[in-house]
Amino acid sequence: MKIAILPGDGIGPEIVDQAVKVLKALGEPFEMEFAPVGGAGYEAAGHPLPESTLKLAKEADAVLFGAVGDWKYDTLDRPLRPEQAILGLRKNLNLFANLRPAILYPELAGASTLKPEVVSGLDILIIRELTGDIYFGQPRGVRECPDGPFKGQREGFDTMRYAEGEIRRIAHVAFQAARKRNKRLTSVDKANVLETFQFWKDIMIDVHKEYPDVALDHMYVDNAAMQLVRAPKKFDVMVTGNMFGDILSDAAAMLTGSIGMLPSASLDANNKGLYEPSHGSAPDIAGKGIANPLATILSAAMMLRYSLGKAEQADRIEAAVKKVLTQGLRTADIFEDGCSKVGTSEMGDAVVNAL
Amino acid sequence: MKIAILPGDGIGPEIVDQAVKVLKALGEPFEMEFAPVGGAGYEAAGHPLPESTLKLAKEADAVLFGAVGDWKYDTLDRPLRPEQAILGLRKNLNLFANLRPAILYPELAGASTLKPEVVSGLDILIIRELTGDIYFGQPRGVRECPDGPFKGQREGFDTMRYAEGEIRRIAHVAFQAARKRNKRLTSVDKANVLETFQFWKDIMIDVHKEYPDVALDHMYVDNAAMQLVRAPKKFDVMVTGNMFGDILSDAAAMLTGSIGMLPSASLDANNKGLYEPSHGSAPDIAGKGIANPLATILSAAMMLRYSLGKAEQADRIEAAVKKVLTQGLRTADIFEDGCSKVGTSEMGDAVVNAL
Ligand SMILES: CC(C)[C@H](C(=O)O)[C@@H](O)C(=O)O
Ligand SMILES: CC(C)[C@H](C(=O)O)[C@@H](O)C(=O)O
Repeated sequence: MKIAILPGDGIGPEIVDQAVKVLKALGEPFEMEFAPVGGAGYEAAGHPLPESTLKLAKEADAVLFGAVGDWKYDTLDRPLRPEQAILGLRKNLNLFANLRPAILYPELAGASTLKPEVVSGLDILIIRELTGDIYFGQPRGVRECPDGPFKGQREGFDTMRYAEGEIRRIAHVAFQAARKRNKRLTSVDKANVLETFQFWKDIMIDVHKEYPDVALDHMYVDNAAMQLVRAPKKFDVMVTGNMFGDILSDAAAMLTGSIGMLPSASLDANNKGLYEPSHGSAPDIAGKGIANPLATILSAAMMLRYSLGKAEQADRIEAAVKKVLTQGLRTADIFEDGCSKVGTSEMGDAVVNAL
Repeated sequence: MKIAILPGDGIGPEIVDQAVKVLKALGEPFEMEFAPVGGAGYEAAGHPLPESTLKLAKEADAVLFGAVGDWKYDTLDRPLRPEQAILGLRKNLNLFANLRPAILYPELAGASTLKPEVVSGLDILIIRELTGDIYFGQPRGVRECPDGPFKGQREGFDTMRYAEGEIRRIAHVAFQAARKRNKRLTSVDKANVLETFQFWKDIMIDVHKEYPDVALDHMYVDNAAMQLVRAPKKFDVMVTGNMFGDILSDAAAMLTGSIGMLPSASLDANNKGLYEPSHGSAPDIAGKGIANPLATILSAAMMLRYSLGKAEQADRIEAAVKKVLTQGLRTADIFEDGCSKVGTSEMGDAVVNAL
């Protein structure tokens, strides 16, 4: 089995190194091939997603991704900026289903800005559609405003859209995920204002007929943002579109206070996937050896489970991560008095030892 | 001066009654005229925003609005649903600037789900553009998908758009508000993905030239949602579009844990405005006399300040509200041990006495 390893920018390379270390320690015959992406892709080949990197990602059985982005690329034209690599990979690999667990490890309850009773034991799964919506809809651009009080002025515009099949396939992913958990699914929409999301809601209701054992409810996106702050533990699985999912999954991750712990998976229809930590490239601490590698290591575990058919190895990694937390090891981002502060590479070694 | 009073549905009438009581106690010669809106408009005239209600709102110098919505209208066709009244009033009265303070009263610090040190003293102002964006953009609807892998299927679609003049006018409102506060403005966009918001950002940077005394920064909407949870006190004034503002202003309000305390103003270019509490119609507790009227009373204070040129009377009301909190009076939503629980009307009376 072949894994494409795309470390990217900022802390990407150092955290990916730890995940690779852990993967190697499993003793499986994985072939791992590295390629540059994001700013590193731009430096190497003049493009954030070089042809050869895309080719490798397509060939591989799974992609392990670090993080991309650095202030120094902020002045590039948009198509050359690092984050275009993520959008390009999602679209080209058809990775339409983004799974983002927001889990609060009991050992890290203190890291949250929320009161312990509100978040302790938090375990929700946000499923975000990832290849449709206003992210990719055409037409888009800057044009002359065609009518209304601003007629003749310049206007920026984009198209939000979801086709029936796009909604159906993400609905199936969400209902199936809910079935494996507590059988409750919240579909987040803005059906009171948007045609796209009235349509979304109608299709969700229709697909629900095939999953009578799962309880489905509908929530407006503004209310969902409130409920995540008010009572996040009421959610089990949440499914929503690309744009709303971008916002809500980040808010949910931050509820835990330990975004350095949260993995994510982006899957196609055949369970091929791209796996990356939920956090960014943190250029301010890059190269200092202090970044938390656990989100990336846990992303590798998700990869083993979803794309490589190695659920037991995934369990082993997750158990090892819990063990190092119990041992009191903490990187700086999750450090608390009474724990032992360790660096990126020490944390990676500790997980390997705990395997 | 004429005030249109639109109580609406659910708890709307009872909370608006208290604000009217307080306004009357000021001894100003206000003319107040009542009209039905939302579900009440539908019952009275077959439409959530009856002609006569719209006419009154247009004629008046300001509108005091309660809340609209009730489950029993959920099955109506969308154009007849209560919330269409809000959208109709915003659009017809050109209320493009929505001002939503998120303030945590020291007396209510315990009501928040966030840790006291994260939110105590919170005082941010979210300015949401209210008549543009994907809320009103055309075309929109359900059509046959014109291209791509889902060609020929049905698809729901909407148009996001902002014209230059629309962005400029909300930018001016935001910079001027920041100038009166701590001179820091955060413009929230998604310029890394959306053409509309790259354009938005460009215009913000341009308008900033006229306000060199205000510090402007830019933040992606997903990051803004995270930072609101992580360190909300870092913000002073935030400005964003209609859709992102819908989500972020509700999240910000919920940070305080006391959304029953938060007023809002929606202004046109001449400071005519509609004033309403940030919370909804809460049909589950309607008619029980337990709803918190303070957000509506504080909305009336905003109305005095922004639309009616009576800043001193606004100050009086705000001071009276602080006083009743200090006295330990609490409605059920913000009740804590050691305080005195009061009903809607008692709370209104207490504010009148404290004036
Ligand atoms: C970098 C950006 C394009 C991306 C997105 O908006 O999807 C990021 O925020 C994410 O959530 O992965
Ligand atoms: C009721 C709804 C149309 C409205 C909106 O989305 O603007 C509401 O959520 C609000 O924020 O006032």
